[in-house]
Amino acid sequence: MADTPSSFSEKFQPISGFDSPRYAGPATFMRLPLIDLAAADIGEVDIGIVGVPWDGGTTNRPGTRHGPRQLRDYSTMIRAIHPATNLNPFKARNVADLGDAPVNPADLADALQRITGFYSRLKEKGITPLSAGGDHLISYPILKALACDGPVGMIHFDAHTDLFDNYFGGFKYTHGTPFRRAIEDGYLDPKRVVQIGIRGTMYDGEDIEWGLEHGVRIIRMEEFEDLGVDAVMEEARAIVGDQKTYVTFDIDSLDPSFAPGTGTPEIGGFTTREAQRMVRKLAGLNLIGADLVEVSPPFDPAGGTAWAGVSLMFELLCVLATSPSTTRPGF
Amino acid sequence: MADTPSSFSEKFQPISGFDSPRYAGPATFMRLPLIDLAAADIGEVDIGIVGVPWDGGTTNRPGTRHGPRQLRDYSTMIRAIHPATNLNPFKARNVADLGDAPVNPADLADALQRITGFYSRLKEKGITPLSAGGDHLISYPILKALACDGPVGMIHFDAHTDLFDNYFGGFKYTHGTPFRRAIEDGYLDPKRVVQIGIRGTMYDGEDIEWGLEHGVRIIRMEEFEDLGVDAVMEEARAIVGDQKTYVTFDIDSLDPSFAPGTGTPEIGGFTTREAQRMVRKLAGLNLIGADLVEVSPPFDPAGGTAWAGVSLMFELLCVLATSPSTTRPGF
Amino acid sequence: MADTPSSFSEKFQPISGFDSPRYAGPATFMRLPLIDLAAADIGEVDIGIVGVPWDGGTTNRPGTRHGPRQLRDYSTMIRAIHPATNLNPFKARNVADLGDAPVNPADLADALQRITGFYSRLKEKGITPLSAGGDHLISYPILKALACDGPVGMIHFDAHTDLFDNYFGGFKYTHGTPFRRAIEDGYLDPKRVVQIGIRGTMYDGEDIEWGLEHGVRIIRMEEFEDLGVDAVMEEARAIVGDQKTYVTFDIDSLDPSFAPGTGTPEIGGFTTREAQRMVRKLAGLNLIGADLVEVSPPFDPAGGTAWAGVSLMFELLCVLATSPSTTRPGF
Amino acid sequence: MADTPSSFSEKFQPISGFDSPRYAGPATFMRLPLIDLAAADIGEVDIGIVGVPWDGGTTNRPGTRHGPRQLRDYSTMIRAIHPATNLNPFKARNVADLGDAPVNPADLADALQRITGFYSRLKEKGITPLSAGGDHLISYPILKALACDGPVGMIHFDAHTDLFDNYFGGFKYTHGTPFRRAIEDGYLDPKRVVQIGIRGTMYDGEDIEWGLEHGVRIIRMEEFEDLGVDAVMEEARAIVGDQKTYVTFDIDSLDPSFAPGTGTPEIGGFTTREAQRMVRKLAGLNLIGADLVEVSPPFDPAGGTAWAGVSLMFELLCVLATSPSTTRPGF
Amino acid sequence: MADTPSSFSEKFQPISGFDSPRYAGPATFMRLPLIDLAAADIGEVDIGIVGVPWDGGTTNRPGTRHGPRQLRDYSTMIRAIHPATNLNPFKARNVADLGDAPVNPADLADALQRITGFYSRLKEKGITPLSAGGDHLISYPILKALACDGPVGMIHFDAHTDLFDNYFGGFKYTHGTPFRRAIEDGYLDPKRVVQIGIRGTMYDGEDIEWGLEHGVRIIRMEEFEDLGVDAVMEEARAIVGDQKTYVTFDIDSLDPSFAPGTGTPEIGGFTTREAQRMVRKLAGLNLIGADLVEVSPPFDPAGGTAWAGVSLMFELLCVLATSPSTTRPGF
Amino acid sequence: MADTPSSFSEKFQPISGFDSPRYAGPATFMRLPLIDLAAADIGEVDIGIVGVPWDGGTTNRPGTRHGPRQLRDYSTMIRAIHPATNLNPFKARNVADLGDAPVNPADLADALQRITGFYSRLKEKGITPLSAGGDHLISYPILKALACDGPVGMIHFDAHTDLFDNYFGGFKYTHGTPFRRAIEDGYLDPKRVVQIGIRGTMYDGEDIEWGLEHGVRIIRMEEFEDLGVDAVMEEARAIVGDQKTYVTFDIDSLDPSFAPGTGTPEIGGFTTREAQRMVRKLAGLNLIGADLVEVSPPFDPAGGTAWAGVSLMFELLCVLATSPSTTRPGF
Repeated sequence: MADTPSSFSEKFQPISGFDSPRYAGPATFMRLPLIDLAAADIGEVDIGIVGVPWDGGTTNRPGTRHGPRQLRDYSTMIRAIHPATNLNPFKARNVADLGDAPVNPADLADALQRITGFYSRLKEKGITPLSAGGDHLISYPILKALACDGPVGMIHFDAHTDLFDNYFGGFKYTHGTPFRRAIEDGYLDPKRVVQIGIRGTMYDGEDIEWGLEHGVRIIRMEEFEDLGVDAVMEEARAIVGDQKTYVTFDIDSLDPSFAPGTGTPEIGGFTTREAQRMVRKLAGLNLIGADLVEVSPPFDPAGGTAWAGVSLMFELLCVLATSPSTTRPGF
Repeated sequence: MADTPSSFSEKFQPISGFDSPRYAGPATFMRLPLIDLAAADIGEVDIGIVGVPWDGGTTNRPGTRHGPRQLRDYSTMIRAIHPATNLNPFKARNVADLGDAPVNPADLADALQRITGFYSRLKEKGITPLSAGGDHLISYPILKALACDGPVGMIHFDAHTDLFDNYFGGFKYTHGTPFRRAIEDGYLDPKRVVQIGIRGTMYDGEDIEWGLEHGVRIIRMEEFEDLGVDAVMEEARAIVGDQKTYVTFDIDSLDPSFAPGTGTPEIGGFTTREAQRMVRKLAGLNLIGADLVEVSPPFDPAGGTAWAGVSLMFELLCVLATSPSTTRPGF
Repeated sequence: MADTPSSFSEKFQPISGFDSPRYAGPATFMRLPLIDLAAADIGEVDIGIVGVPWDGGTTNRPGTRHGPRQLRDYSTMIRAIHPATNLNPFKARNVADLGDAPVNPADLADALQRITGFYSRLKEKGITPLSAGGDHLISYPILKALACDGPVGMIHFDAHTDLFDNYFGGFKYTHGTPFRRAIEDGYLDPKRVVQIGIRGTMYDGEDIEWGLEHGVRIIRMEEFEDLGVDAVMEEARAIVGDQKTYVTFDIDSLDPSFAPGTGTPEIGGFTTREAQRMVRKLAGLNLIGADLVEVSPPFDPAGGTAWAGVSLMFELLCVLATSPSTTRPGF
Repeated sequence: MADTPSSFSEKFQPISGFDSPRYAGPATFMRLPLIDLAAADIGEVDIGIVGVPWDGGTTNRPGTRHGPRQLRDYSTMIRAIHPATNLNPFKARNVADLGDAPVNPADLADALQRITGFYSRLKEKGITPLSAGGDHLISYPILKALACDGPVGMIHFDAHTDLFDNYFGGFKYTHGTPFRRAIEDGYLDPKRVVQIGIRGTMYDGEDIEWGLEHGVRIIRMEEFEDLGVDAVMEEARAIVGDQKTYVTFDIDSLDPSFAPGTGTPEIGGFTTREAQRMVRKLAGLNLIGADLVEVSPPFDPAGGTAWAGVSLMFELLCVLATSPSTTRPGF
Repeated sequence: MADTPSSFSEKFQPISGFDSPRYAGPATFMRLPLIDLAAADIGEVDIGIVGVPWDGGTTNRPGTRHGPRQLRDYSTMIRAIHPATNLNPFKARNVADLGDAPVNPADLADALQRITGFYSRLKEKGITPLSAGGDHLISYPILKALACDGPVGMIHFDAHTDLFDNYFGGFKYTHGTPFRRAIEDGYLDPKRVVQIGIRGTMYDGEDIEWGLEHGVRIIRMEEFEDLGVDAVMEEARAIVGDQKTYVTFDIDSLDPSFAPGTGTPEIGGFTTREAQRMVRKLAGLNLIGADLVEVSPPFDPAGGTAWAGVSLMFELLCVLATSPSTTRPGF
Repeated sequence: MADTPSSFSEKFQPISGFDSPRYAGPATFMRLPLIDLAAADIGEVDIGIVGVPWDGGTTNRPGTRHGPRQLRDYSTMIRAIHPATNLNPFKARNVADLGDAPVNPADLADALQRITGFYSRLKEKGITPLSAGGDHLISYPILKALACDGPVGMIHFDAHTDLFDNYFGGFKYTHGTPFRRAIEDGYLDPKRVVQIGIRGTMYDGEDIEWGLEHGVRIIRMEEFEDLGVDAVMEEARAIVGDQKTYVTFDIDSLDPSFAPGTGTPEIGGFTTREAQRMVRKLAGLNLIGADLVEVSPPFDPAGGTAWAGVSLMFELLCVLATSPSTTRPGF
């Protein structure tokens, strides 16, 4: 039955700040055990948190390759229980830090291939991934692995559509193009894709036109403000329905006052309160994975972006942990 | 009569930015005179601003020991008159910078004792303290001094309850435990305690359960958003009534975008507009003191946290300056 | 006819981020061509973006002299089209970077004279200026040039009235006095001046009294929150009417969480969403110029203030580009 | 025989930057495996790198509790082979990251006891520790464990003697007192202690007098400059001789231009070139352990202090790896 | 004749800080005119300063793509005359800012090709390039253009040899491999290559072995300290002789205290005094170009790295300006 | 007799870090009492430390107006006794913090007059000033007061001569002109002026020519390196002889790695070791005052510049405290 996770294991409990100060010890995601994909106990993992330290698709300010390590560092300040729902996701599912996906900073094509390879192994093992980028192009090789058996839906929080066609005279793979590629390649069903928070000055608007033509629902910031969080999320839930859905959260959907450490900020974005409320509304969807991308530590002198990022990763973890999808095959 | 302060003295007027630039001169709180507790004119002081440069109770990121000095620095940008009420608190009461309470960074028990000693002297002299931390454990020795003749009420702005029992296997005094200790020791009447802004991931929720059992009113962020500032503050005022009440403002109740420089941030917090509005609603209560704590300069590269902190200290000063309590005995 | 700009020229198109990465090349405003006032093609320019790198009027924290260069740097992340209106201002008008006005950091009077001289040349050429400060005193010499033939109206976004009389015992020209001087000297019609966002502690309130006496409409932050953006802007539009109007946007009108890099921050300010919405409401007014001032890079470690600044300069550019005034004489 | 380490194990090789970028993966010291003291393979470890995330003895600026994590982060940029000697310490000895010693940020006495307990276990297992602080008081509980069977010698690089008697009216344990306590308690033989780099303004000089009386050799900065590195180190080697010797390196011995991120900087310190040359001169001594302390990340915006710190930890590792002491009993 | 530059032109004089403050105006290299390669007056340029905003070869910390813009910004603090030689390079040769070479952040092979194309045009025009990186891989496509008619010599200041063979399982083009590739491809004559300042931990030493086998003279830091600047530079001059020679200066050859803002720092590096002295010793060599690379602004919070970088670029400019090579063909 | 200071007073002893942590309490210079010029006990003061928070003469990057406050903050880490001489200057002379000189940020001429007025009062009272800038133009009004009865000699540590004639077309008073004005006005005897550390690119060299013509001894950095500290200082002492001498230390004489926080850095400067050694060689000269200028906190994210500055102020204090001049008239 869907809602039956692996049998609970004490092994997958985070270290408590009551026992050891939060700043102590090497940093793993949420102070969880670090499990290698080749380890014996990998079979017990329901949800795997994975870093993808790569920014080879970045056309503007770089640095998201350093995201996973800083997110791990800040994630040690996360405690165990959700304040609004009282859910302890570490009790609901076995969650582990699976380390970083392999990457190649000097070759884009090789990097994409390595990332897809890693996520294909996760999929084989029935582990639901919660990923920490890296730039937004990483969602493409992840979707390639997770949607190998058919297009999925997606709820996409972002300031940008990432539906551009190409850059610099024909180059097809950048952090501005992942979802155009994913739709073209059949990993996403555009009619089950919702984009929320789109804003900022535009090149020529072709990305939006293309998206609309293919059926993507694009909710710009102005419309978001008019509709409000609840109506937006109700519509989003209706669009993706109960079929397989991926969630991608670009930290630049937040206003730069909340998340300065990102490569392509746009003013007028979400508050964290709005973001928390939106992510919480994903509860119960059929989620096959989620990512949080575009945290760039070199542009974040106070570290607040990473902290917002891991706080939202915990919110994403909680909705993954109650999703019917997060049970490994055979359970 | 309650509303009669000490006779007005020109001596206690802050230096104006019209006369000397704000960045000039050694920094005292709000450019007020620095008065030693042993000085002859201490008897004229109604409200004393005090630093408590101590973070020995901090279980996570330190640095609030540097709070008072940075708050003094930024406080020199505060002018004389409240923009909404036109109150000039320096005309309403004699206010002075009383320097820092004595502390001991290398011995927790000694530090608590020294702080209580200092505030006991203030109480004897009938001076109402407005304190700048320091970590939140400082509220405990302050309350110990101020509430020596019976439990008081408290309005508490914070992301955390600070009602935990112990850390690290039985250690009872940390910045997560002050109000549990203060209730246990009879310095606070839990039925007259309101906590506003509680949020963030939880250890196990025992702190909240304990608080509720003892009658503390805990208004979590989600409830705050539903009720709105006015209803929340109306309830808070009703709970504390017209009896003696202390106000404690943890800067981490603000959202980290407004106050990144703190040890234990939680996303989804108050805006400064909300905070200003809430503090203004304290006007007329029977306030025996207030503190603003947890400003940690080393985590605040742009200084905005200290600026938010002293701006709110001015708001607190204005409600203290109109409180019936801020008249020294004999006046 | 008013709405006919210079004939469109390919020369005045910004370099696209599709062709060259945004961080590449020397930075001009919005990647526009840099045109010297003495150049042959200056006659084709409708709107000129000008830096005024001067902070000689600053009574508190300096650094806005570095504003224009940092604003240019961040402005290279601006794209061509407005997200809400689809306006491409670079198609609507010929826009160019006109470099910086001449200044003198060591002599206030000389600096004011140089600035007025520069803007007088712009006015002669029929070029509408969009200026980047510098401290707020720069608006005075700009108005002196632009309003040489009669007082104009002004919509003024700011935390402060800048209507003070003098500082330091009689000194009349500081960044706290420009609009008192401009009213006294007949460059501004006080009955057509609206100030929005006024807040923060006050010296003595004389500035506000003087403004009110002369007919300035001062909308303090508390009133702004009560009225809401739409009502405020409707009133502002009514006050300035269809006569010549200048717009001045002090970045400190934004909350410091959005714009920490400024000399005189005040908590409780505008969000960027509110600011965007307000500036957009200026569309169709008879605008003769605009400025964005008080961005101080040395106090802005994360650069977000400059980014907010140029994002709002783009908003201002869009309303200038649709203003009837932005057609040069003879067109 | 002394120079026979545990049998070489592939398991203890650091991950190469040729295989995985240095910024990838969770950070352990020098990308070594993280081995728990209770793990089965702990018996194979010759040298254990240990963090001690504690600054409870700090009388001035705090933050060294965050040292171990930042040192781990930067240590991932360390490669395998020493540039001057071609030694690969990971081939010479089995080296592992043993995690952090247990600490208590809210109770000094308990923290010292926990640290001694951890190091006693290392000593029992015959593992030589290379420690990363933490403030300098951590050397005291470490020495208490390592020198339980008799006083050892010490080479001490520091700006300060740390031979003070007490602070704040009798408090005996701070980061200014560890070596006075260690001499008094018989963990150090003062006649075999050399202090190099002492400088900075003095309280009253009593610390130096006490040290000299007990036979400590104190080489102040002025004398260091006169003698030069080679003579200083020759003398230091002669003083400690071939008996058991501990090495403690306070990062504040470096000049603040090389190591700004520390609590008690003193200008006029070592260059890193001098420091490297000095540490290299320790080769062949009978070293029982070493530590590098006082790296305080919150005061180090550019991270250079941590980088200098781990670079010197690698130098220390290389001299430990060729010390006769670094073979576990029984080998 | 070699030492006859283009006829002197007033047009190529930098703006003086006596006339306009250094922080004023858009930033070009050394406040020189910005000349497009297609401009009419390109034929008058002797030495072109070029930015190469690209870090696609970076295997570790990124950000050098932002180098050219920040170097331009800081370069406006450079004045006209060399303090030790009294040379005014802007009088000796016509020098201009030629903008940035075209790049592609999302495709390494395309980027290398674009860069070579740009420099081939410079070579055709007889313009000697002084380049600002970007990461060190940019030297490879530059050499490919400049040495198209035969191998040249090179004086190479660096902490690393950049003679590695490949990374990540066979990838041949990274910022660790440019000079191996350039030697293999016949752009450099290894017997006329000198590397100065090599230091830091090593992978396996294969790069050094390969270099030595091919005749590269590698002067490690330890040898540099023994020999001294004068002997080192005498030898370097002898090795390159009077044939065509390129100079490449990696900012990481400086100690991180002087240049923290770089991706791969190594402690124990050059002081700026040593660097200045070394570059000055290049006077009179037959120099065909020079570059300064690896300045990474995101890792340089105080900007000192860029300032050291442009200060050394001015030193390089002065030796280029007196090189016989810097006369365009036909003069 | 010259070497007899005011009678020793316990009142003028700094607070010890043994009694109260260094970060505690409002910051005064070196934790000394703050004495108003109008106070009764001003007559007991021998040496007064004065801030001059003004940067109105700055032609480049501003911010030194914030110098005094940050220097006060860091000065609380200074202890009582000199490490090389064992001198306790607070025992040798009565030293006090006299607050800041009055300034005017918005009017240069008025500011100069206010500063001279303040120092004239000091001179009348026989108090020797140790000043903290502020930009270097402050030395001019100070010299005007101190040398009102005849030209004095000066030892001047700086990267720049500050002997320029004018800026921006005739403006005579900037931080580049103070000593030309002081020589012209007869406050300095050019034949008794030594400048040490001059370096950096030059405008046109006219400043140096003018200085040499008037007899100023200019020791450029290259010559300094050749001669060495001892020879340079021997010559400097010979030049000023036993007549009245002022000392001015521009923090930009230090290398930017030691002092990044300054407006006009030049690479290749002094180390702090060299600076300490040079200042110590001033002992016994007939010193009438000293200043340390050009510390600009906004350009100093790590605070090291202020720390170097106050450390050198302590060195200056020690040579002032043993100067025959530092006895007040009548003693």
